[in-house]
Amino acid sequence: MSRRSFASDNNAGVHPELIEAIKAANEGHVVAYGNDPFTARATRLFQKHFGRDVAVYFVFGGTGANVLGLKAITNSYDAIICAETAHVHVDECVAPEKFTGCKLLTVPTPDGKLRVETIKPLLHGIGVEHHVQPRVISISQATEMGTVYTKKELKTLADFAHERDMLLHVDGARLANAAVWLNASLKDITAGAGVDVLSFGGTKNGMMYGEAVVFFDKKRASDFKFIRKQGTHLPSKVRFISAQFEALLSGDLWRRSATHANRMAQLLGSELAKVPQIKLTQPVESNGVFAIIPPRFVPALQKKYFFYVWDEEISEVRLMASFDTTEDDIRDFVGFVRKTVK
Amino acid sequence: MSRRSFASDNNAGVHPELIEAIKAANEGHVVAYGNDPFTARATRLFQKHFGRDVAVYFVFGGTGANVLGLKAITNSYDAIICAETAHVHVDECVAPEKFTGCKLLTVPTPDGKLRVETIKPLLHGIGVEHHVQPRVISISQATEMGTVYTKKELKTLADFAHERDMLLHVDGARLANAAVWLNASLKDITAGAGVDVLSFGGTKNGMMYGEAVVFFDKKRASDFKFIRKQGTHLPSKVRFISAQFEALLSGDLWRRSATHANRMAQLLGSELAKVPQIKLTQPVESNGVFAIIPPRFVPALQKKYFFYVWDEEISEVRLMASFDTTEDDIRDFVGFVRKTVK
Amino acid sequence: MSRRSFASDNNAGVHPELIEAIKAANEGHVVAYGNDPFTARATRLFQKHFGRDVAVYFVFGGTGANVLGLKAITNSYDAIICAETAHVHVDECVAPEKFTGCKLLTVPTPDGKLRVETIKPLLHGIGVEHHVQPRVISISQATEMGTVYTKKELKTLADFAHERDMLLHVDGARLANAAVWLNASLKDITAGAGVDVLSFGGTKNGMMYGEAVVFFDKKRASDFKFIRKQGTHLPSKVRFISAQFEALLSGDLWRRSATHANRMAQLLGSELAKVPQIKLTQPVESNGVFAIIPPRFVPALQKKYFFYVWDEEISEVRLMASFDTTEDDIRDFVGFVRKTVK
Amino acid sequence: MSRRSFASDNNAGVHPELIEAIKAANEGHVVAYGNDPFTARATRLFQKHFGRDVAVYFVFGGTGANVLGLKAITNSYDAIICAETAHVHVDECVAPEKFTGCKLLTVPTPDGKLRVETIKPLLHGIGVEHHVQPRVISISQATEMGTVYTKKELKTLADFAHERDMLLHVDGARLANAAVWLNASLKDITAGAGVDVLSFGGTKNGMMYGEAVVFFDKKRASDFKFIRKQGTHLPSKVRFISAQFEALLSGDLWRRSATHANRMAQLLGSELAKVPQIKLTQPVESNGVFAIIPPRFVPALQKKYFFYVWDEEISEVRLMASFDTTEDDIRDFVGFVRKTVK
Repeated sequence: MSRRSFASDNNAGVHPELIEAIKAANEGHVVAYGNDPFTARATRLFQKHFGRDVAVYFVFGGTGANVLGLKAITNSYDAIICAETAHVHVDECVAPEKFTGCKLLTVPTPDGKLRVETIKPLLHGIGVEHHVQPRVISISQATEMGTVYTKKELKTLADFAHERDMLLHVDGARLANAAVWLNASLKDITAGAGVDVLSFGGTKNGMMYGEAVVFFDKKRASDFKFIRKQGTHLPSKVRFISAQFEALLSGDLWRRSATHANRMAQLLGSELAKVPQIKLTQPVESNGVFAIIPPRFVPALQKKYFFYVWDEEISEVRLMASFDTTEDDIRDFVGFVRKTVK
Repeated sequence: MSRRSFASDNNAGVHPELIEAIKAANEGHVVAYGNDPFTARATRLFQKHFGRDVAVYFVFGGTGANVLGLKAITNSYDAIICAETAHVHVDECVAPEKFTGCKLLTVPTPDGKLRVETIKPLLHGIGVEHHVQPRVISISQATEMGTVYTKKELKTLADFAHERDMLLHVDGARLANAAVWLNASLKDITAGAGVDVLSFGGTKNGMMYGEAVVFFDKKRASDFKFIRKQGTHLPSKVRFISAQFEALLSGDLWRRSATHANRMAQLLGSELAKVPQIKLTQPVESNGVFAIIPPRFVPALQKKYFFYVWDEEISEVRLMASFDTTEDDIRDFVGFVRKTVK
Repeated sequence: MSRRSFASDNNAGVHPELIEAIKAANEGHVVAYGNDPFTARATRLFQKHFGRDVAVYFVFGGTGANVLGLKAITNSYDAIICAETAHVHVDECVAPEKFTGCKLLTVPTPDGKLRVETIKPLLHGIGVEHHVQPRVISISQATEMGTVYTKKELKTLADFAHERDMLLHVDGARLANAAVWLNASLKDITAGAGVDVLSFGGTKNGMMYGEAVVFFDKKRASDFKFIRKQGTHLPSKVRFISAQFEALLSGDLWRRSATHANRMAQLLGSELAKVPQIKLTQPVESNGVFAIIPPRFVPALQKKYFFYVWDEEISEVRLMASFDTTEDDIRDFVGFVRKTVK
Repeated sequence: MSRRSFASDNNAGVHPELIEAIKAANEGHVVAYGNDPFTARATRLFQKHFGRDVAVYFVFGGTGANVLGLKAITNSYDAIICAETAHVHVDECVAPEKFTGCKLLTVPTPDGKLRVETIKPLLHGIGVEHHVQPRVISISQATEMGTVYTKKELKTLADFAHERDMLLHVDGARLANAAVWLNASLKDITAGAGVDVLSFGGTKNGMMYGEAVVFFDKKRASDFKFIRKQGTHLPSKVRFISAQFEALLSGDLWRRSATHANRMAQLLGSELAKVPQIKLTQPVESNGVFAIIPPRFVPALQKKYFFYVWDEEISEVRLMASFDTTEDDIRDFVGFVRKTVK
């Protein structure tokens, strides 16, 4: 395998500035479980970026962030509406159902985005006890297909939800990439668009581990500390997550890394698009490139560059750029692709 | 607050050698979720220390390790028998019940240890569907009271369990400290004593995060990868947990750190025992000291040195040493105690 | 409302012979919870009808039967594949997910039937821990659309499941109606077709309450008594369920009642089909009639005869016949329909 | 076995007046699931007996009533405090934990009653996320030991709970027997004493099946219909439960039956107390008699009269009277006891 591949943004390591932040945090004793100065400072930075009144809780990983955030805003007999491609539906091994008791109602969507008109047919049986009660619309931003909801699209979904006593949950494992694409602040595309609960991703933006659950209405978080602990996601030495978030959010590291990853994906996409045998299937709006590569070439390519076939049926592959992808990596890869498919 | 306190071994930071291991692991891309060379090497080290045929899975934290290990060996209608003081019962906010469905049956115990004669009265209603079915004996080694089961005590519990078609689970958040006290190998006091499933603690022995669930019979782990993922504890960049475990277990770091922490606890205990107003309540066998301090002195002490009152009723406090506790820390603390209680 | 409507077969009361059986069972004391002669006799009748080696457990209701039967054959990280119209998906308010932890994967189907070719696309990610593991195919026989799987269709699904280490679960709330349509024995269309677990309905075939969970391989039921009790479905005075099943299965009452209900549905369907404004949407194979009635006529009809609109979008209604439906009821209803739609 | 034994009040059959009520309800069709005139009338009777503003929901069985009532008033990280002998703890095979996620904290109690001073030590860690949060005090009235809380004892527990933002739950499987002993109305010892949620037993007071969950503050029941359905306890032909409750509560049948059962227990207790080898262990306050019978006589007695040994260690047996116990039954049994122990 090549030193750097395009398999996933979590195949990358840790951004060097974050390693430094971890080292700097490794001094003396602090109280475990969050009552420490690192966590206090990181929390203030979240409030700066997302709104003064948000409540924020750090957890170990992304599936935990999604599951616990959803648990906080659902009853066990509720439905969570999501895209058929959503991480919570496809990639979390039934964790949301197991922990929340809820049903996930899925919507087929070619570009990974939910839309009001595709959600509407799911909203029946409201108030009827035989039927699951739609309570949350959960979207990924950026989507699993690399596309990005515009602020207007977000707002439309949020308004639609709120008018029906529903809430908007965002799996923001790649929220930074979306913000970069939209040239927007983090607040703009969350609080500003009506988002209720957010999983804010650290790992895919260069952290070692650690995600945040952000509540835009603090009241919804009133008992989240119990949910987090019962959900096995209260880190003891949480300062090392906090210190990474502090480093990510105190300057522009979060944006720099995401900007770079997005730019690399753009480059990769445009270069691949020039290869006649290859066809991009999605616009490149964040750090992922989706492309159909004729199946007979895939094994040879995977041998040197590990990546995932996203959709076997049409031989669609997913290629992800990360904070450390270089132009050379792309040149080498595309060169190898050209050679292989010739 | 003092730079280093005795509140808990998880108030300490990360051992410098582990920080180095993390840095060294931060090179290039590797496949996420465990199919990487770091995890392969760390796994082999677990097999060296615990037995060639063990199955080992890394998770983010200790509560997760306990809950998921227990889930793997229980049915939802089973009982887990544990000490009234057990972490799984007292400190995990009902996580075991929520995730496994099981009932925890508790045994009062002055020294944190379960014994056959105290377990026996709980074993009734076997095979009767109205009653919960005792299935697991879960102990902490070292115990929550700082005491350590001898190998013979472990064996007795394991044999007792196995004769009744039950299993022995060990919460080994401080297994290293127990091994040091017993002057035993990790294998001796686990596989060698009949343990079935183990949570092996990294965090309290100097790691940043990361624990391991070890199955001594691989067959019991046949579907644990699904349980771990559904349990939200499959780390994506797991190499950074693996690299820490590798550093801990490849040489003697695990033992060095635990030996030091135990020795510091011995020193702290013996110094405190000399203070006439103070009375140790447990023998010091690992890295914890339990002592009654007259309640009127506690607030003043806590102001300078944060620690937890373990039992309010008798004003018993818990003081923990860690890998980085120094003799000076103890001298300073004991000096301050002497001054305060005078 | 009319004395008898076509809203549902559970709007009917109890068959008089079953009331008599209940009265006859009301003599003296018997041990509660199933160790009584009524339950012993009813069990033997199930073994006669379904196979000598089946294990059978009585529960209070149909949702309980489905949920507990599914729990017995799944792990919490498994998927249950069912029709988009399945009772377990649409009408049980997320009970299966809550109690089993599993995900329900649904298949769109115009006639309520699952078919191999529509199931196949759901079978991916096998053995991959990120993804839910397909484990059970759950069908309704008769289906929610009133159609009936042929024995060959059942066999094909069962073989398909078994070849993939999956199991076939049948929600047989109306199994008697299906058997009548197929002119088959109960065994033929269950054990004989490869069914693994069955909910056998009593209530919709004239019982007051009570359903049975039948395991065609006893080994799968080895711990079901605990699952039933933990699932809150162990009736104390179970003899009154057993006595009803005994009366249903000792002679031909189960078949007589289902035959009558089916015949009434045939009559209702054929009479409605003669009304030009009305269009049947499904073949009438059991005791349900599905028909499109122009929406402007529905309220007037519902005022006199309560029934459910099955699909609002196309104004499709569901009309159910039951053991006590009379030819007069149908004549009156169809007459009223004719008058209304004129 | 004798025609009528003293094993349990659920070994009895159904009171003849209730059978008649069932028969009378078996006329024509009514809408299933509760929107029927029987359920409307029964609900009004509950409101008459328990208070105008109560919300009442019928379920199939007692374990379901307890589990679902508790689910309605707990979060998954809460504790339910109950007696070590409580049905919810001992006899429901972990159903409460599985469905609510909660922990049951138990209190040893010689007479089956909780008291403020025994509850207090469990109330620590409030607001601390590591610890389970005490939320409900659950008592049985009459208790599992046949004793009865006085109205003052109930009030003290309710006040204690409410002062701490906790709620009082009553497992009233034998509430009628308690009301008779206290010579009180049902309202007096529930609403009047500060009870928040009640399982009101029908089965042990002569019904075939059916229990009620009563909420004394309707707001707590706002989503209970979903909890009941998801909890698999929404009966389809619920009119047959409603009709029984109507018959029980419209006149004085509930009281007549309980009075008789209590009186029979008094007689049994006083007769047994005259046998020198036998020693009553609890005062007889409801329909149960607890007595130590020398173990060498137990098998011979059980052969003719089936009953349960309550506490093997001290050879304490439980004998229950029911609505149909006769003075002859008691005379015969006591005569046989006298003969056996001679």
